[in-house]
Amino acid sequence: MKATGRHLLVEYKNCNPLVLNDRLLIEELMRSAAKAADTTIVTSVFHPFFPQGISGVVVIEESHLSIHTWPEYGYAAVDFFTCGDGLPEKAHEVLKQGLEAKTSEIMFVNRGAISEEPAMEMVSHLTESEQGQTIHFSSLRGVEDVTVEDKPFRKIARAGK
Amino acid sequence: MKATGRHLLVEYKNCNPLVLNDRLLIEELMRSAAKAADTTIVTSVFHPFFPQGISGVVVIEESHLSIHTWPEYGYAAVDFFTCGDGLPEKAHEVLKQGLEAKTSEIMFVNRGAISEEPAMEMVSHLTESEQGQTIHFSSLRGVEDVTVEDKPFRKIARAGK
Repeated sequence: MKATGRHLLVEYKNCNPLVLNDRLLIEELMRSAAKAADTTIVTSVFHPFFPQGISGVVVIEESHLSIHTWPEYGYAAVDFFTCGDGLPEKAHEVLKQGLEAKTSEIMFVNRGAISEEPAMEMVSHLTESEQGQTIHFSSLRGVEDVTVEDKPFRKIARAGK
Repeated sequence: MKATGRHLLVEYKNCNPLVLNDRLLIEELMRSAAKAADTTIVTSVFHPFFPQGISGVVVIEESHLSIHTWPEYGYAAVDFFTCGDGLPEKAHEVLKQGLEAKTSEIMFVNRGAISEEPAMEMVSHLTESEQGQTIHFSSLRGVEDVTVEDKPFRKIARAGK
């Protein structure tokens, strides 16, 4: 397996709280997301919390997908970390639909350390909603937001370089 | 559990490859790291790959700690994601020593979505090595590196705002 990877950190907001508290459904969604990303599932573990909330991880040959849900806030924190040829964007589409998320905030980080050079690079940071996309550019001057029409985010978002 | 969290993405470089390929030792280290971070372990799963490498996740009440190792590159990709009052920096110290990492590249991201505002913020991105620390400032103009004397990284590193 290649030691270079792509890591999507996603905050799903305004989700369906009933979905967020359904352990079996969350596990099914995460396993479907792993398959959509063209990855190979090794094992998975999902745990319900009292009085609500789920934590779960799907370990894949290409790294992992994790989820933590807060039904009381309609919120889920998700990570798709894939090495090799995995497609974390495809996993994102499955989760966005499955959780019925009205808003998704996505930070995209390249990873993989073979040399002494810095390996991690924040490629993009943006919010997808029904209104389109807002790109959050972080800079030494602060964060500048730019709202754009709805397009596949990989083609338009690039911050930090 | 609070829905705000702190996420450390760490690339450990020039580690001891024998450690990186020892499943029991990696699991013990990760569980020790979870305890050092003052978190509560729910469950853990660790998987060895052929011919080498380990993937493992410790699910904690406060989110998760994950590791993927490439002994052939002396490299491990680690995530410490803690919500509430967990201390991911303490987990980092345990792993850095345990893996015998000569260099650690750390990206520190705040998370947690309750409002419609962007929830994620890259707080810092830096490399710790025997020579001290190099802070990587990402900006619209590119990445600017600043090398500083060795101090606890939380006190000195702040980029993107």
